[in-house]
Amino acid sequence: MSSLSRAAARLQGRLMAATAARSFSSLPAEVEEAITAATSAAQTRPAFSHTPAGRNHLYVPGPVNVHDSVIRAMSVPGQNHRDPWFAEFYKQCLHDLKMIFGTADGTPIIFPGTGTGGWEAALTNTLSPGDKVVTFRYGLFSHLWIDMMQRLGLDVHVIEGRWGDGAYEDKLAEVLKADKDKKIKAVCVVHNETTTGVTSDIPEVRKTMDAASHPALLLVDGVSSIGALDFQFDKWRVDVAVTGSQKALSIPTGLAMVCASDKAIASMKTAKSRRCYYDFADMLRLNPSGNVPYTPSLPLLYGMQASLKLLRDEGMQNVVARHHRLAEGCRKAVEGWGLQTLCRDTRWKSDSLTVIEVPKGIDSQKIVDVAYAKYNLSLGIGLADVKGKVFRIGHLGNMDELMLSSALCGAEMSLIDAGVPLTPGSGVARALDYWQKTSAIIPTRESLMQ
Amino acid sequence: MSSLSRAAARLQGRLMAATAARSFSSLPAEVEEAITAATSAAQTRPAFSHTPAGRNHLYVPGPVNVHDSVIRAMSVPGQNHRDPWFAEFYKQCLHDLKMIFGTADGTPIIFPGTGTGGWEAALTNTLSPGDKVVTFRYGLFSHLWIDMMQRLGLDVHVIEGRWGDGAYEDKLAEVLKADKDKKIKAVCVVHNETTTGVTSDIPEVRKTMDAASHPALLLVDGVSSIGALDFQFDKWRVDVAVTGSQKALSIPTGLAMVCASDKAIASMKTAKSRRCYYDFADMLRLNPSGNVPYTPSLPLLYGMQASLKLLRDEGMQNVVARHHRLAEGCRKAVEGWGLQTLCRDTRWKSDSLTVIEVPKGIDSQKIVDVAYAKYNLSLGIGLADVKGKVFRIGHLGNMDELMLSSALCGAEMSLIDAGVPLTPGSGVARALDYWQKTSAIIPTRESLMQ
Amino acid sequence: MSSLSRAAARLQGRLMAATAARSFSSLPAEVEEAITAATSAAQTRPAFSHTPAGRNHLYVPGPVNVHDSVIRAMSVPGQNHRDPWFAEFYKQCLHDLKMIFGTADGTPIIFPGTGTGGWEAALTNTLSPGDKVVTFRYGLFSHLWIDMMQRLGLDVHVIEGRWGDGAYEDKLAEVLKADKDKKIKAVCVVHNETTTGVTSDIPEVRKTMDAASHPALLLVDGVSSIGALDFQFDKWRVDVAVTGSQKALSIPTGLAMVCASDKAIASMKTAKSRRCYYDFADMLRLNPSGNVPYTPSLPLLYGMQASLKLLRDEGMQNVVARHHRLAEGCRKAVEGWGLQTLCRDTRWKSDSLTVIEVPKGIDSQKIVDVAYAKYNLSLGIGLADVKGKVFRIGHLGNMDELMLSSALCGAEMSLIDAGVPLTPGSGVARALDYWQKTSAIIPTRESLMQ
Amino acid sequence: MSSLSRAAARLQGRLMAATAARSFSSLPAEVEEAITAATSAAQTRPAFSHTPAGRNHLYVPGPVNVHDSVIRAMSVPGQNHRDPWFAEFYKQCLHDLKMIFGTADGTPIIFPGTGTGGWEAALTNTLSPGDKVVTFRYGLFSHLWIDMMQRLGLDVHVIEGRWGDGAYEDKLAEVLKADKDKKIKAVCVVHNETTTGVTSDIPEVRKTMDAASHPALLLVDGVSSIGALDFQFDKWRVDVAVTGSQKALSIPTGLAMVCASDKAIASMKTAKSRRCYYDFADMLRLNPSGNVPYTPSLPLLYGMQASLKLLRDEGMQNVVARHHRLAEGCRKAVEGWGLQTLCRDTRWKSDSLTVIEVPKGIDSQKIVDVAYAKYNLSLGIGLADVKGKVFRIGHLGNMDELMLSSALCGAEMSLIDAGVPLTPGSGVARALDYWQKTSAIIPTRESLMQ
Repeated sequence: MSSLSRAAARLQGRLMAATAARSFSSLPAEVEEAITAATSAAQTRPAFSHTPAGRNHLYVPGPVNVHDSVIRAMSVPGQNHRDPWFAEFYKQCLHDLKMIFGTADGTPIIFPGTGTGGWEAALTNTLSPGDKVVTFRYGLFSHLWIDMMQRLGLDVHVIEGRWGDGAYEDKLAEVLKADKDKKIKAVCVVHNETTTGVTSDIPEVRKTMDAASHPALLLVDGVSSIGALDFQFDKWRVDVAVTGSQKALSIPTGLAMVCASDKAIASMKTAKSRRCYYDFADMLRLNPSGNVPYTPSLPLLYGMQASLKLLRDEGMQNVVARHHRLAEGCRKAVEGWGLQTLCRDTRWKSDSLTVIEVPKGIDSQKIVDVAYAKYNLSLGIGLADVKGKVFRIGHLGNMDELMLSSALCGAEMSLIDAGVPLTPGSGVARALDYWQKTSAIIPTRESLMQ
Repeated sequence: MSSLSRAAARLQGRLMAATAARSFSSLPAEVEEAITAATSAAQTRPAFSHTPAGRNHLYVPGPVNVHDSVIRAMSVPGQNHRDPWFAEFYKQCLHDLKMIFGTADGTPIIFPGTGTGGWEAALTNTLSPGDKVVTFRYGLFSHLWIDMMQRLGLDVHVIEGRWGDGAYEDKLAEVLKADKDKKIKAVCVVHNETTTGVTSDIPEVRKTMDAASHPALLLVDGVSSIGALDFQFDKWRVDVAVTGSQKALSIPTGLAMVCASDKAIASMKTAKSRRCYYDFADMLRLNPSGNVPYTPSLPLLYGMQASLKLLRDEGMQNVVARHHRLAEGCRKAVEGWGLQTLCRDTRWKSDSLTVIEVPKGIDSQKIVDVAYAKYNLSLGIGLADVKGKVFRIGHLGNMDELMLSSALCGAEMSLIDAGVPLTPGSGVARALDYWQKTSAIIPTRESLMQ
Repeated sequence: MSSLSRAAARLQGRLMAATAARSFSSLPAEVEEAITAATSAAQTRPAFSHTPAGRNHLYVPGPVNVHDSVIRAMSVPGQNHRDPWFAEFYKQCLHDLKMIFGTADGTPIIFPGTGTGGWEAALTNTLSPGDKVVTFRYGLFSHLWIDMMQRLGLDVHVIEGRWGDGAYEDKLAEVLKADKDKKIKAVCVVHNETTTGVTSDIPEVRKTMDAASHPALLLVDGVSSIGALDFQFDKWRVDVAVTGSQKALSIPTGLAMVCASDKAIASMKTAKSRRCYYDFADMLRLNPSGNVPYTPSLPLLYGMQASLKLLRDEGMQNVVARHHRLAEGCRKAVEGWGLQTLCRDTRWKSDSLTVIEVPKGIDSQKIVDVAYAKYNLSLGIGLADVKGKVFRIGHLGNMDELMLSSALCGAEMSLIDAGVPLTPGSGVARALDYWQKTSAIIPTRESLMQ
Repeated sequence: MSSLSRAAARLQGRLMAATAARSFSSLPAEVEEAITAATSAAQTRPAFSHTPAGRNHLYVPGPVNVHDSVIRAMSVPGQNHRDPWFAEFYKQCLHDLKMIFGTADGTPIIFPGTGTGGWEAALTNTLSPGDKVVTFRYGLFSHLWIDMMQRLGLDVHVIEGRWGDGAYEDKLAEVLKADKDKKIKAVCVVHNETTTGVTSDIPEVRKTMDAASHPALLLVDGVSSIGALDFQFDKWRVDVAVTGSQKALSIPTGLAMVCASDKAIASMKTAKSRRCYYDFADMLRLNPSGNVPYTPSLPLLYGMQASLKLLRDEGMQNVVARHHRLAEGCRKAVEGWGLQTLCRDTRWKSDSLTVIEVPKGIDSQKIVDVAYAKYNLSLGIGLADVKGKVFRIGHLGNMDELMLSSALCGAEMSLIDAGVPLTPGSGVARALDYWQKTSAIIPTRESLMQ
């Protein structure tokens, strides 16, 4: 290879790298031309360098579609959180957040971080290394939380479950019953397992704990449930609940929101786990006066407020009902396709996302790949133990019937593309039939129907 | 009714007016006050004051869906068009615009205005009051252009056509043949009639003029075709072509774009129509040096460049093919529903929009209303002569298969809601079958299919 | 030159062209690198291809700085103006616009277009070719309006004035007195001449017309005054007033707003000027029901509403007072520099912009150039007759003391750079002294001062 | 006070809290209701509820002004970080970040979090509880880091310093010399202390460590220096450097960026501090393939890339030089005012921010308050030990001469308002004189100066 060809190859490499960025920023025409010239010389364009017409169709179970009013609310210049308006604003934020937790008595805390950070906050503020906890493994996220518990030095009793099942209350009852000395300090449950599309039954878990008169804390991962599914922090006597901004709240990643009960807060005194960044203490000291221990992300807080306003205007009961209606339509489509959800037990079927098993002999990754390659459709892949066996359709957060119709249409075509024998329309038809019969008039548009 | 109640009713009326704005922008404080007072009194919410989750599903034949990269490009602070960078930028804009007109020889001109202004520019720069022109009426937009011609004092020969047909070339041939003295100064054609979903055959019109050896100018309204459908300004020897920014270019309203042939420019010398704002002369004098006679809208120009980049990346041939594929799917759905398009002749069926006749006894307005009331779906209503008889699905501009799937799903449910006897899925299934078979891999995503 | 060098030169040319676009879009890193490599080989970068840190400092008298809440309001997806919410929204827009015209009785009309289009609307809707009008020439914009009058076939009596003076009421009195037969149909006045920084005295013009008992219409160009300076459409009995969105309203270019008196509307019956796009008739027919004759620009309407809300919250009297306070500070700086405003008569000095004469021997263009080259400061150049003799500082619209301080600091450094002998700080000090003494506490921030 | 009045007062209190948010976001309906009721009753408006014309002038030392191209880049819909384009994009992000650290050999890691989280990452990944570290206290941020070290169980040797001084190398030398057994595991230094405006001399610290042949790790808080001031990770042999997105990078809060040396990475094996969220291990395992252990914030990553592009285009040396030029101008203004910076030693004076002592008898809080109340100017308050004694002007990140001019003009007026005896212009004049003489032509604008 001559040095000239090497230089050319090098330039080509850089151009190809350059154009990898192309799908998310706009290039001046001539630069494009130059790139095109270079790449067409190579008879190919770098992977994912082309922005197709239309839009990316996003149906993963988070990050989810952001409402356009929320995008607008976040598009702000730099601002100073030490300006005098901030304190009242922040107190309002914390107050408004109570709605999605279903709490009047709990204390919401917002960390700049992610749901993973929320997990850490829940554990380290309430427990000490060596403390005994009991939890369930039925998917990747429950597994990762268990991994964190172990790394934090907790003594974890894991109740293993089928990936597709929820929390086994009977097994929990046994464990609690066996714990005569009440050594178990916490029961940890992933409310909605995003790997499998399973919503565990927290009220039943609580009932089980009560039946055993067990004083353990109840720590709940509500990352893909809170703000979408029914959640009653006070009624269920949850001690710490955790969620993240990019799920049902439908804003970008960056806020870990937790809600702590008085009992959880009291447990901080004895909890010896080392904690700094995710320590409740700094927050609890400063938040009441509207202050924060470290710089907050104002755009995300504005987005949160804009998103909470949409949910409040809709009414949380209606939000929960909408998620159920969307999920039901999706499940009817799955039936129409002759396929099955990974979750078998009706009481556990998630209204946040639907996880669909593909027929033996088909790699579910192929469906996800063709959906993205042909239809610009982003579906959720099968993770860990169910890799290749399932694909996931997220329908939580900022979502409506026609949006989800797109996903079903795209999934249907992708299934056919991947070799699943389907009659076109077989799934979508079932969903449409259901939605046509169950969708109500949008509030304030009644006059059009007279 | 007491005077107090009347005052209350009057206030209430104003408030409901006020709050119509509520779903899309923050309201001025005073309006909020009033609304609050009124709504809490009335125990009800004003019309259209609620923002539902999800998004508005926009499928009218313009304004169309703006690509998110284009929205971004337009979100700019104030800027000075007399700063020294502007001239080169503006020359580039004019150059880049040639692509959608299919021209190398024509001269594009951009007016701050709308397609209606483009019509006025086309007529007043080339014709004098009293000049004879021939044109066709087959929809509301061709009608409105005729109305303008008459108001400008032109002597208009109108060839009437069925609403649903295109330009009758045989009738044009007769008229031209009869014009022994070549008194006809221009043939004016609406390329794509947005009322009826009909694309007239401009190459055939040109051939007809050539066959008659007629020297008339060929003025073409390409408002809902240029940038979406095949358009060959040079090859078809169009003299003035007109389009607007909110159609296939997929940016907000505000730019009237025209393209003028040398012959059209030469005709300015003899054209005695009064013109100022829409005069080509000021533009032609200043544009070559990158200047403009009055303040340009920089955000719209940035949007235009961002949008042209997307089209250029896709390639105009692929853009045209995409529109055809989308339209074919839509037409298959119409067949599946057992309905008919208003346009009967295959050669005239528009790839920009589909206009669908509803069964006798059904008011098409009801379909459009229920679509908006239940599914947040915006469809095009029937206009003028076909009011109540048709509804329209726009699929031009920034559009892809899954977006159009949403519209078909929504239309299908709305048809059922309005009482049209349909089997759910009957239309969508046909479109999906067609698209699954005909959609190609998105360029640069080939690696996913290996 | 070898073919290889030619290819290289060609690539280089394209890359240089490419980078001309650089200041308004973001490039992926590697493309940048490639360009940089290429351009640094050439030891130079294309003109204006670099985006410096900070911001562009915009102080031309339009387009002006857009408030960040207004930018946000305009950042919207495509929407359908035929959706049912639109009519009430548009009626509200028209109603809200009355505030800046100072009218209860006038009828506001919004055209998609610019102030130039507003000029055309004012003239063609009220006058016929051959009609006699009287007006003043004292700057480029009054000159351009006269040019339009002449192109529209009006018989224009021009009262010439010094560039730097306003409307001479005594000369107008003479002309009106001499018009025994009341042949003069309209008096046309540019309220604020943006070339010279002069605000003519419309109440005095009205008084002069009344003194002559003259029935002529009073047509006023308020492009750079309405929304910033005191304007009383009803009290002054203006017949048509014209403004544009990119001036005091502080949104992007694209809306021509006019306000018409009943008398102006009545004159449409006799006005024989041909008009279509800018015809009031279509608007007056459709607007009362919230409809429009052609597609409106929704983003600009949202921007207009957001901007009107800011003005309404501030209160128009306070807006006018703010503009005066800003202008006074600017004029004090000019005194501090030992320079003079082009406008000599205090009663005519504009509060929208300040036009400053530079010393003999200095080319004012050099000041504007160095301001942009060294400080990223956009000042207004001298136009037409005062080219090279003056530069202009715009301070209308969305502006405050510290923003204008930047302009004064930048102008001061640029004057020194251009060779004007100045002591640094001599002007700014005067402005600060004035502002410190006259600026009030921002409403709702009083608690900070206790 | 009657119970009714108490209820009213309570409501009023909540409302005022509520409306603090009003100037920057649309309020939820309920809050609006309440405000309206309360304000109309009280004939007054709640604190901070008014948005003045112009803009907020932001000159705190972080969060800083975001460039408009960066705001645009971040205004994106939801996206899936598991889509196939992500991996290459993320690898590019990590690569591009090396520039601001001044490293070729270090490993950048991005956490969703803040600088405080970066501190925790630096300590927990390299150290074990009980480990001995030496550090300096000379301001609030060095104090807070020390507090964290103690909470993490480290054995901290604090070298106390005057608030206004930097790291005392001689004292460090003594400590290191005394550490015969090399028990000290790390030297921790806050590079730029944001409380006091002091930049410590990291090369000298390194030289001191080398002179003592001490193997301790060098951990550096570069939160308000990296990306603004000279930073040479490789050359200075820093082991972990920490920064945050809202400082010199000039994007919103939300990313904690660290850079780790091979030595730091090797120390993870022995470091027994518990860590999960801020563990390097998960990042180091996944990042090389472009993956992340938990959901990244795509908008912030796009903003980071847009911001890095601006810095790369400018060139890091030029960025550093700009910060120095800005700071010098600011310091000259302070001299002009007859005041002093808190930092006395020239070698330590920070180019990121300037901290100014106010005369005895003046409360610096009053200056900050009046600046915000009268001029919409956000200055930094005095923190902790220097509360009331100093105010701070931030000039790091996206900043230029005319922006900083605004701050100086505003500070000057505010000083006078607060009772500091000053001649208006005395400070600004000095800065302008300096900048006029030292500012270069903006690259690519040379042609304007010929």
